[in-house]
Amino acid sequence: MKPQMQFAPVCPIPIMEYPTIQMAHGGGGRQMHKLIEDFFVPAFQNPLLLDRHDGAVFDVGNARMAFTTDSYVVKPLFFPGGDIGSLAVTGTVNDLAMCGARPLYLSAGFILEEGMETEKLWRIVQSMKRAADEAGVYLVTGDTKVVDRGKGDEIFINTAGVGVIEHELVIHPKAVQPGDAVILSGDIGRHGIAIMAAREGLEFETEITSDCAPLSPVVQNLLGEGIDIHCMRDLTRGGLASALIEISEVCDRQILIEEASIEVREDVRGACEILGFDPMYLANEGRFVLFVPDAHAERGIEMMNSCGGDSVAARIGTVNSGPQSVLLKSVIGSTRIVDMFSGEQLPRIC
Amino acid sequence: MKPQMQFAPVCPIPIMEYPTIQMAHGGGGRQMHKLIEDFFVPAFQNPLLLDRHDGAVFDVGNARMAFTTDSYVVKPLFFPGGDIGSLAVTGTVNDLAMCGARPLYLSAGFILEEGMETEKLWRIVQSMKRAADEAGVYLVTGDTKVVDRGKGDEIFINTAGVGVIEHELVIHPKAVQPGDAVILSGDIGRHGIAIMAAREGLEFETEITSDCAPLSPVVQNLLGEGIDIHCMRDLTRGGLASALIEISEVCDRQILIEEASIEVREDVRGACEILGFDPMYLANEGRFVLFVPDAHAERGIEMMNSCGGDSVAARIGTVNSGPQSVLLKSVIGSTRIVDMFSGEQLPRIC
Repeated sequence: MKPQMQFAPVCPIPIMEYPTIQMAHGGGGRQMHKLIEDFFVPAFQNPLLLDRHDGAVFDVGNARMAFTTDSYVVKPLFFPGGDIGSLAVTGTVNDLAMCGARPLYLSAGFILEEGMETEKLWRIVQSMKRAADEAGVYLVTGDTKVVDRGKGDEIFINTAGVGVIEHELVIHPKAVQPGDAVILSGDIGRHGIAIMAAREGLEFETEITSDCAPLSPVVQNLLGEGIDIHCMRDLTRGGLASALIEISEVCDRQILIEEASIEVREDVRGACEILGFDPMYLANEGRFVLFVPDAHAERGIEMMNSCGGDSVAARIGTVNSGPQSVLLKSVIGSTRIVDMFSGEQLPRIC
Repeated sequence: MKPQMQFAPVCPIPIMEYPTIQMAHGGGGRQMHKLIEDFFVPAFQNPLLLDRHDGAVFDVGNARMAFTTDSYVVKPLFFPGGDIGSLAVTGTVNDLAMCGARPLYLSAGFILEEGMETEKLWRIVQSMKRAADEAGVYLVTGDTKVVDRGKGDEIFINTAGVGVIEHELVIHPKAVQPGDAVILSGDIGRHGIAIMAAREGLEFETEITSDCAPLSPVVQNLLGEGIDIHCMRDLTRGGLASALIEISEVCDRQILIEEASIEVREDVRGACEILGFDPMYLANEGRFVLFVPDAHAERGIEMMNSCGGDSVAARIGTVNSGPQSVLLKSVIGSTRIVDMFSGEQLPRIC
């Protein structure tokens, strides 16, 4: 007889900050990191998972591969500049790109709520197709589940992706060195504000559209040009601030950035002021930070800006040898520590 | 400027049987297949997706890989013989095994409902860890999202998996040949009845536990022994009947099976009679059908039964040269056509 599953914990339950799951556990801030560190890391501990990277990197035969996943629960499903379908493809493509991989294949798992209009599903599927075409990936395997009315929210999509790494670079937070230039690929905050505006029915003078776009073309260009990439990170949940803090923690370096060089569009800045958001923490779906040696910074920025797109890359700071911290030099010259946010800034953003 | 996403369909919306999603669209029967054929196949058409296999198979470098995904929405979360965690690991491991791959790495995407007890999450994560250890796979990358109370159902889990194919066989429904033996790996119907009993609070004289178990060890043994596997399929949603019908459709052959050789435990048969279920359509999570040349059948069965486990493999039929159909020779000698079920037999079974 097969042994019965035992439900006794293999490791003791860690002291829990919350007896129940809160929205903040999915927010990309301090609580989410605590949940991951307390629950998932001890259970599944293995060298690949402990890497704290956007995806896992491993060898199969003579191929070096990257593998990543994300679930998408964005609300509303459709927003200026995209929808849950384009997001589900682009987000996973971008995680592969951030590992330095060329995205190859995606899977898609749909959780549909009974009663969802099939016409919406059709639009979402078409949007996934277009996003996959744009990023040059194939959706090769999938799954569909339906849950009873009131037990879902129209549609949740999970995508996982595999990509191939075709260079010898080690792209990782640990590879970040003192003296490295920190380059931001464009303006920040648009995805977060676009979602918020669509959700709350807010109208601004100009329509703020999500920056949702595949990052693999620009990354492939940087690699093709021989830019010595040390690290990349896309600026999704938790925004620029959280990405920099995570990288600073893993490489144990000080990252000093200058507020004046971080581009925030005027309309986004205005919306942030009205809504009480800090653009540093807002989610983006087509922006990333790049760490390269100082000598490669100028050519890297040139390459990024030659790819077209709707934004301008710029150097925003430098890595110093100090202990882990992210320091922001403000427009008026003062310097403050950038901290990971606590609580929930903006739920269901992706 | 980035072009605005266009929501105009790339292909026209197919004539829709339903204007809204129904539970049956996730049931593994006729409606689910129609949704996939109408929506997903035309949008994402590519040779790998069109393969109608349990996963996609492709080459990267000198490695032949398999890639698959499933979302798990089973209700209740805990049931005799397993829980959503063990199911999420085992189900994806089994899909890789059915492609003839050795499972290597899994991803896990969690969609948690605000208010879920963290103690439950802990038990589920521990169960995933044990299932991964048992199957010899590593969980290497993950994602956590939280949705508002009332917009989920405690927890949904998606897993995707990658495996490596280390043999030259082409394991696929199209490889099925007239004369092939059809071998069933054990008794059927237990997972479906275990879920149903747990959900409805039914009690039987004996506890019926799910058959949930990883199939990769037995498949690796069969491959290691040089059994010429033509096709394998695990018997999840839709059960034995749907698996045979799908294979028959793809290989365009007649499959003749004998009811008397299909093992259904007495307590499962009794429960089916009370509940009005046909065991042929009930979901299993540790059973598969194997197609091999007649000359390899005996040795294959021997190998399967030497792996231990709680069930006995047996030959249940033969592939004939006729056009696609599945015929069941009943205990009393009559023969009937086995058809794909319509509607929803048992929702949220996996």
